[in-house]
Amino acid sequence: MMSRSDRRTTSRGRLTRRALLAGAAGAIGAAAVAPVSGQQAIETTRRPGRGPSEIDQRSPFVTPRRAPSATSSRTPLQDLRGTITPADLHFERHHGGVPEIDPTRYELLIHGLVQRPTLFGLADLKRFPSTSRICFLECSGNLRRGGPDTLPQMVCGLTSQTEWTGVMLSTLLDEVGAGSDATWFLAEGQDAAVMTRSIPMEKAFDDAMVVYAQNGDALMPGNGYPVRLLLPGWEGNSSVKWLRRIELADRPFMTREETSKYTDPLGDGSTVRQFSFVMDARSIITDPAYPRVIEPGWHEIRGLAWSGRGRITRVDVSTDGGASWHAADLQAPVLPKAHVRFRYLWHWTGGPGEIMSRATDETGYVQPTWDALREVRGPRTRYHQNPITSWTVGSDGRVLFGAERLRS
Amino acid sequence: MMSRSDRRTTSRGRLTRRALLAGAAGAIGAAAVAPVSGQQAIETTRRPGRGPSEIDQRSPFVTPRRAPSATSSRTPLQDLRGTITPADLHFERHHGGVPEIDPTRYELLIHGLVQRPTLFGLADLKRFPSTSRICFLECSGNLRRGGPDTLPQMVCGLTSQTEWTGVMLSTLLDEVGAGSDATWFLAEGQDAAVMTRSIPMEKAFDDAMVVYAQNGDALMPGNGYPVRLLLPGWEGNSSVKWLRRIELADRPFMTREETSKYTDPLGDGSTVRQFSFVMDARSIITDPAYPRVIEPGWHEIRGLAWSGRGRITRVDVSTDGGASWHAADLQAPVLPKAHVRFRYLWHWTGGPGEIMSRATDETGYVQPTWDALREVRGPRTRYHQNPITSWTVGSDGRVLFGAERLRS
Repeated sequence: MMSRSDRRTTSRGRLTRRALLAGAAGAIGAAAVAPVSGQQAIETTRRPGRGPSEIDQRSPFVTPRRAPSATSSRTPLQDLRGTITPADLHFERHHGGVPEIDPTRYELLIHGLVQRPTLFGLADLKRFPSTSRICFLECSGNLRRGGPDTLPQMVCGLTSQTEWTGVMLSTLLDEVGAGSDATWFLAEGQDAAVMTRSIPMEKAFDDAMVVYAQNGDALMPGNGYPVRLLLPGWEGNSSVKWLRRIELADRPFMTREETSKYTDPLGDGSTVRQFSFVMDARSIITDPAYPRVIEPGWHEIRGLAWSGRGRITRVDVSTDGGASWHAADLQAPVLPKAHVRFRYLWHWTGGPGEIMSRATDETGYVQPTWDALREVRGPRTRYHQNPITSWTVGSDGRVLFGAERLRS
Repeated sequence: MMSRSDRRTTSRGRLTRRALLAGAAGAIGAAAVAPVSGQQAIETTRRPGRGPSEIDQRSPFVTPRRAPSATSSRTPLQDLRGTITPADLHFERHHGGVPEIDPTRYELLIHGLVQRPTLFGLADLKRFPSTSRICFLECSGNLRRGGPDTLPQMVCGLTSQTEWTGVMLSTLLDEVGAGSDATWFLAEGQDAAVMTRSIPMEKAFDDAMVVYAQNGDALMPGNGYPVRLLLPGWEGNSSVKWLRRIELADRPFMTREETSKYTDPLGDGSTVRQFSFVMDARSIITDPAYPRVIEPGWHEIRGLAWSGRGRITRVDVSTDGGASWHAADLQAPVLPKAHVRFRYLWHWTGGPGEIMSRATDETGYVQPTWDALREVRGPRTRYHQNPITSWTVGSDGRVLFGAERLRS
């Protein structure tokens, strides 16, 4: 992972370094200049800056914002680089607002088919062997089909990624003596919606966590402070926030969130996908994207790809609306069930174009087109829509959301 | 990296699961309880919480703070979990305060032994092929020898870790046509100190970056907004912030920061270590640490280890003041020149103890004792002090900094 060749391997190899750099120089219009940097650089050297502080704050020139709707706030993907989302910009989605919880009064009850029903305080949870994991979290309703003037944030901003720390749920279940007859557990939040989901016990003994930290710090209130469930790779609503209760049983609980909501009607209208937890592989180009206007020359197409089933193994990029595809570079380390940053160098010569990305994961699953997805799922499904999306580039350089592709 | 056995292998294997969990249960005093969670959990379900917002804010119950001194602010290591530092808690160290820089007027000049002296604006830098990297940054003055009541933050809080994104410096040097006769370059900041350092060209063509993003977002002002140099694994001051100028030459520039400061007098008093850039392997236990008071039972000893020379390969923990050592678990993925979280389960039976950690990196370098370090470096050195430090545990459970070890 250390060498530059490891970090960028595939598409870069097709260009000679000279061609690339000459192109970049042309594109940015760099020029020889006077031997001293700009006037501002001199100004800022003439007076002391602010002193050390207890907490830093973004520059007044930096104002990334989530896009709030009635029940969610979307991460500004177009403003972010790399793979980590600042915790205060992590998307939020809730059903009864964000409760304010006093951590000294917080308790998690684990009961049902267990030998020792137990209440855990926050300090108790922190005593157990801990684990950290960087992974994405995505809402199953993460597709909005807007018009050409749709930001990446609005297309796909209900996915984010932080480093989570907590205790493996399996450790807590060993502690309480989970019954061998338990096949499902209920996870219940202490928000005003009393959010509840039924989760198969297999997930509990696989990689489910009960987490209390996010990017090193305590969880953000909108992400479940002080404690949430974390089910890596599964739809966000199942990672129940403000977790107050886990009940083990020998059946699913058939809560509101798995009957009237979070089910996917299929094409024939009579059947539904239920307990469709896993988030399939997906990707989105975050730059260039609406509202950028680009000039002819070299551009690094940048985006994010992820899969709830494991590692992303490949991202292909097309610049001609899907007629031809090219492998993008993947930024190491590529972690399982995690956002990976992909990059692909594109020389735009000025004609109309359409750029799009297609993710493949380690199971061989390939992100589908909208038509292929609709054919399988039918027209009435609202969740788990992970189609290839695109950005069109006009001859004037304007980059617009490829809304046409999702019209049906 | 997916399986639990991969995540925690060494020390955990020595305990049976039953012994561990019985111990944990005993330690936290968990007990069977009523079937409904605490009163607060009911209260918060009775009224809607706050709605979605443009930006989240820490819970009012969560108040991590850096510790500011005259010229730096230390990261609160004792409050953090995992490996990522929230950007607003990343340590800062500066020599003339934090300038406020208008990004639209920002320029980086690269000149000297180059074919095409060039000014780059911020947008220009963002156009080049980009790279992201998670790595630590540590001040070479990162040791304070306080008394028993010294927090991890004060012992060792001038190290932090975020994900950085920017352009490889080598890419920019190709762009300007770096001369083959260049052996050093000057990096100059536009703060009131006009911070300058001479850096060998080898580092430029190895892994040096010019970065504009931190944890996805723009750099924090205290960390160089809008652009800083990043020299992974090297002492923090060489990663010049608010970078305004890079000048290539055939010699070091012998600036104030490499003559009167940031040099290490050696034992004989007549020679100094100069251009001692690399940060050697180090570790610190962040929990339990002062001011905690612990009770007998199982405790997970947690800490951070890192090396400027590459990957940490091993961290050993002693609970008896160095008489015996035990391998700690390392949280995957272990990245080069990055903080790694280590963990070791310890059963404290109640007597006096002294806990300490010792890092080993992929070059075979082993973190030294204070005595060994002083023997090599002599008594007058101020920088690059990476000795093993310890926390004593009294029979009353009070955890204190092992100040005695650093008395000399």
